[in-house]
Amino acid sequence: MRHSAQRPPSVVDRVLDLLGAFTAERPRLTLSELSRRAGLPLSTTHRLAGELTRRGALVRDETGGYRVGLWLWEVASLAPHGAELRESAMPFLEDLYEATHQNVQLAVLDGPEVVFVERISGRGAVNVVTRVGGRLPAHATGVGQVLLAYAPAEAQEDVLAGPLKTFTPKTIGEPGQLRRVLADVRRDGYAISDGQIELIALSVAAPVCDATDKVVAAISVVVPAETDPRTLVPAVRAAAWGISRVLGAPRASSTA
Amino acid sequence: MRHSAQRPPSVVDRVLDLLGAFTAERPRLTLSELSRRAGLPLSTTHRLAGELTRRGALVRDETGGYRVGLWLWEVASLAPHGAELRESAMPFLEDLYEATHQNVQLAVLDGPEVVFVERISGRGAVNVVTRVGGRLPAHATGVGQVLLAYAPAEAQEDVLAGPLKTFTPKTIGEPGQLRRVLADVRRDGYAISDGQIELIALSVAAPVCDATDKVVAAISVVVPAETDPRTLVPAVRAAAWGISRVLGAPRASSTA
Repeated sequence: MRHSAQRPPSVVDRVLDLLGAFTAERPRLTLSELSRRAGLPLSTTHRLAGELTRRGALVRDETGGYRVGLWLWEVASLAPHGAELRESAMPFLEDLYEATHQNVQLAVLDGPEVVFVERISGRGAVNVVTRVGGRLPAHATGVGQVLLAYAPAEAQEDVLAGPLKTFTPKTIGEPGQLRRVLADVRRDGYAISDGQIELIALSVAAPVCDATDKVVAAISVVVPAETDPRTLVPAVRAAAWGISRVLGAPRASSTA
Repeated sequence: MRHSAQRPPSVVDRVLDLLGAFTAERPRLTLSELSRRAGLPLSTTHRLAGELTRRGALVRDETGGYRVGLWLWEVASLAPHGAELRESAMPFLEDLYEATHQNVQLAVLDGPEVVFVERISGRGAVNVVTRVGGRLPAHATGVGQVLLAYAPAEAQEDVLAGPLKTFTPKTIGEPGQLRRVLADVRRDGYAISDGQIELIALSVAAPVCDATDKVVAAISVVVPAETDPRTLVPAVRAAAWGISRVLGAPRASSTA
């Protein structure tokens, strides 16, 4: 419920509150759960959910629970990162996966968080908490540190001003430390995040640029913590460079 | 605009008409294009698009065009096939990709069409027309023939009654022929679709079952037409079997 407090919620707000009631932890909701989580009366919920279901934006399963529908998923697959970025990135992510057989991720920045838009992982890969469509705080992840390092100053300051949630003793929890890490990333062109989300894993991340040379995404490989991250840096940077070149990034193209 | 003709469109209908105005061919729309394609007055479009943009369901790019937003994509990633099915399938799709370096696809049935929910393809793979979130007529594709073969009788009859669009001289265009192909698929447990979408490619497809033993998806490998499809059948069937086992399919589990 992100609608502003100044005015009463519109029907658009109510529809989006209904859709936003679904989460990764609760992808299936009963009518009463939907009503409670969306903060809407049961009758309104029933009417709106019925309309959304008739149009395929929601679906009901055999036992009457609501889920997000295929129609909405098809529309949403047209989001910017879902088409050009993903298609451009996939062959390079495949190459990285084949070279490592670990977890390969593609992420974009949204405020203080990263959203994972693609993930490839093998059966033998170290278990990680991320999933496609999932989020993590940017400051604690390799892809997030890359995206923050190249983000506008205001976006960086927002994160540096906020509380920095720690997941392990290794998570960056102090603004001065994060500032130094971001400067290192800009100098080196990549990030190594060691045990900051889970102690068992580390990641190596590098930036992806678009045709305007803006950093629009980051890729990373997540491997067991005992791996020497330096052995992965060239492969991750080369893959990020390759994706940038396909997207038309001027620097990546000129040296291709 | 799938709202019924009997009653005037509601605000929910209008919101969904706006979202449905975006297509793979036109993922970016100006305000006037959005208004025209959604069939809504410019003022209504402006107001609704503004509300959707404020909530992140749409985004505006630098030049003022609208696109589907990241927020909507995150919600939509919670659709049933987007979470459990995709996560269960990915390691097996990876294995198939590594064995073939061609196109590996995961699809579900929606009426007379298949929707591709995942696709892996390498740089050297035969070019195919599909994309994630894209659709093709079920009768003309390997995955579609598999999904139709195991679909309820009504769903099959709907397709058999409708016109069968042909893409190449090899596309099944005649109901009797399709009926025989579906019977073959049920007997053999897989489908081979040779040059039915494009003459340059053929696909081998097999069914994926869930914990209730219902066929919920199909996977396929799309390879150049000169490939002997029989060399791919065991790998595709084994991968489909593996995914079914992870989903808890009784027959797949009992023989694992």
